[in-house]
Amino acid sequence: MSDSRVPRVVVVGAGFGGLEAARALAHAPVDVTLIDQQNHHCFQPLLYQVATAALSPSDIAWPIRGILRRQSNVRVVLAMVVGIDRKLRLVRTDWKPVPYDYLVLATGATHYHFGHDEWERFAPGLKRIEDATRIRDRLLLAFERAELATDQAQRLKQMTFVIVGGGPTGVEMAGAIAEVATQTLRSDFRHIDPALSRIVLLEAGPRILPSFPPDLSAYAERTLRRMGVEVRTSAKVTGVDADGVLLGDERIDTATAVWAAGVIASPAAHWLDAPRDRNGRILVNEDLSVPGAADIFVIGDTAHVQRAGAGAVPGIAPAAKQMGRYVGRLIIAKISETPLPGPFIYHHAGDLATIGRRAAVVAINRIHLRGLLAWVFWSIAHIYFLIGVRNRFVVAFDWLWSYLTFQRGARVIDNTPHKPIAAEHSGIKDTASTLH
Amino acid sequence: MSDSRVPRVVVVGAGFGGLEAARALAHAPVDVTLIDQQNHHCFQPLLYQVATAALSPSDIAWPIRGILRRQSNVRVVLAMVVGIDRKLRLVRTDWKPVPYDYLVLATGATHYHFGHDEWERFAPGLKRIEDATRIRDRLLLAFERAELATDQAQRLKQMTFVIVGGGPTGVEMAGAIAEVATQTLRSDFRHIDPALSRIVLLEAGPRILPSFPPDLSAYAERTLRRMGVEVRTSAKVTGVDADGVLLGDERIDTATAVWAAGVIASPAAHWLDAPRDRNGRILVNEDLSVPGAADIFVIGDTAHVQRAGAGAVPGIAPAAKQMGRYVGRLIIAKISETPLPGPFIYHHAGDLATIGRRAAVVAINRIHLRGLLAWVFWSIAHIYFLIGVRNRFVVAFDWLWSYLTFQRGARVIDNTPHKPIAAEHSGIKDTASTLH
Repeated sequence: MSDSRVPRVVVVGAGFGGLEAARALAHAPVDVTLIDQQNHHCFQPLLYQVATAALSPSDIAWPIRGILRRQSNVRVVLAMVVGIDRKLRLVRTDWKPVPYDYLVLATGATHYHFGHDEWERFAPGLKRIEDATRIRDRLLLAFERAELATDQAQRLKQMTFVIVGGGPTGVEMAGAIAEVATQTLRSDFRHIDPALSRIVLLEAGPRILPSFPPDLSAYAERTLRRMGVEVRTSAKVTGVDADGVLLGDERIDTATAVWAAGVIASPAAHWLDAPRDRNGRILVNEDLSVPGAADIFVIGDTAHVQRAGAGAVPGIAPAAKQMGRYVGRLIIAKISETPLPGPFIYHHAGDLATIGRRAAVVAINRIHLRGLLAWVFWSIAHIYFLIGVRNRFVVAFDWLWSYLTFQRGARVIDNTPHKPIAAEHSGIKDTASTLH
Repeated sequence: MSDSRVPRVVVVGAGFGGLEAARALAHAPVDVTLIDQQNHHCFQPLLYQVATAALSPSDIAWPIRGILRRQSNVRVVLAMVVGIDRKLRLVRTDWKPVPYDYLVLATGATHYHFGHDEWERFAPGLKRIEDATRIRDRLLLAFERAELATDQAQRLKQMTFVIVGGGPTGVEMAGAIAEVATQTLRSDFRHIDPALSRIVLLEAGPRILPSFPPDLSAYAERTLRRMGVEVRTSAKVTGVDADGVLLGDERIDTATAVWAAGVIASPAAHWLDAPRDRNGRILVNEDLSVPGAADIFVIGDTAHVQRAGAGAVPGIAPAAKQMGRYVGRLIIAKISETPLPGPFIYHHAGDLATIGRRAAVVAINRIHLRGLLAWVFWSIAHIYFLIGVRNRFVVAFDWLWSYLTFQRGARVIDNTPHKPIAAEHSGIKDTASTLH
């Protein structure tokens, strides 16, 4: 910058990385604009609990403005980014163009259906609050439909749940659905026994939780099987439609499939026309800047950060947060013309995943925990990382309550799509009726 | 019934009345079918708190199956009723016909826009969970749009909120919106001051809270004015459109109008072709049966129950519950051929409405409470009447937390309609962008 005005930092995305970057600039002489298309930061690691009716959306989502309301150098803009003009240094949005001196792209990733976008409708992924409530509605409606089903094939289809992808999200979803079926809904129906549901977890690789040590993968698989989940490894999905999931010649009839398999980075690489890996992540420099653009940084799930001899930095919350803090420090150093920090170095804290009641896996360096101890550790860690006293308290209370009662507090179907239920059974068109 | 099979009681609607009727039959030798088009019972008196981001939907909604899971003679059916065949004694639904020996219609009421259905889009009412989340999204989005507005007229329009109807719901909404604007959002924006919002409460009659004693109406009006609400009595709405509310020649520009004025009974009277009042309520016999159909009962907001010299029984939760219990007892008496109870007699417990922080009104017989004492009474009464330990605890905690921090825990915009925001400011069409 040649003039003396306050430098403008634009951060796109208020996930873990973007929020951390904005916060790291709290005391810097900069104007920060944080752009997101949602009004809330979402704690993605617990999305599966919203999808399985254990928590409410607001328990894991917090208004971005609320988080940053005391940081006076930040303004929050609810808008959608549609492109970047590197020459004019403008972020193009559906509102108006936003000029920047430094740009931080923290736009995350979205689910990737192996190039088959048409599968998304039938097997939605789990990245945003609205994905979670959509899956929750489907899950709860499947049992309602099974209860009303008039033929056995329809009933079995409604009581079959397929989760595609055996990473942490897939494992957590499978375990939670098993608990909903065998515990939460145990006494709720008269014509079906939810405990007889078929829950199938499909993993394309040779073992579930591939990022964990093999002994913990084996424990997770054993535990899921004991909970009644059909765990199938080396199972490659070749099709998804309204009636089920295809594995080559085999078809699993289901009305409720969940996608926890692939993710792809948001279109930041397209906006910048930057070099990317096969998951769409931008291949950044060692200071997280974009090759050829020292004023643009990419962090979190949108960045491909190479580690010496260890593959890319994983797409998890702690990595995004570390990158956000690093870029904040780097921008401050550039502006204040103090020595720049060295290259970004990722510190891997460990891997956690929960399976069910008193069952989780934790791998921290050489320490492998499982069972009750891992589960307590997982619970405390997640409550600790939630934002806000209110959410920590409510989540802790809801978990305690669920633990004691086997119930789940958020079993509301938001939007009951009456036409589809009706359509499966009869042809009657509704005119007007207002029950409540 | 001529045969010896178990009598079938069908209850339509799982609101306060229907649920109470089903419960009253818990130990009776009957098969109860409870039909509702939602999977949850909704605690309507607190819907305005969901609409103003204080509570989450699941805090005031409870799965009907969960409530009745231990009552083995009830089955719950998620379906929509489309008509009644009195001859064949069948309830026609979008699922399949459900036969009855006794039928209890507890289908409630819906908002009535004085015959102008086209106003509903612009001024939604508040009867179901989805109404509340829709209003919440609009309310929160209005402030977001005001922050991004590029001209003053647009900003003022976004910062104007009009509530039509000065009954308890209208008063509670107006007070809660005032608190959102002046307290919750106080430090959240950079370009607007939410405290400068214009909040207008319109009442067609000469005073707000017309069902309360005049001294409490006057107190409520003073309190609302002190909170910054423009209270206008004898103000008759003549039009509602996308840009505002019309009062004869006067137009109030607003993007957020809420309808709390008229309600109309659900179409049960049409299903039965029964005599009704001008609000669509069925004029029932003194045992709540339908004239000419001793096997069909109508309760709650769908029933017009005449009291000797006191007008109709009001459309409030306690009245619906009393009717539900009465009809349950009556059906048991009919089946067991024991003496029938006398005519239904309504016991009015009192009227409550909250206005804001430490301000409410309570009228119980000759006792008129207002201010802090009434507010504490209101809070305790509402927590007491909530269903389930978990909800009571979470609501109590959220209220305490809001009281101490001035914050609201459920400020999530579920569905951010990006196109409309965008459309107001530019013509850019989005292609793809995944911020989170």
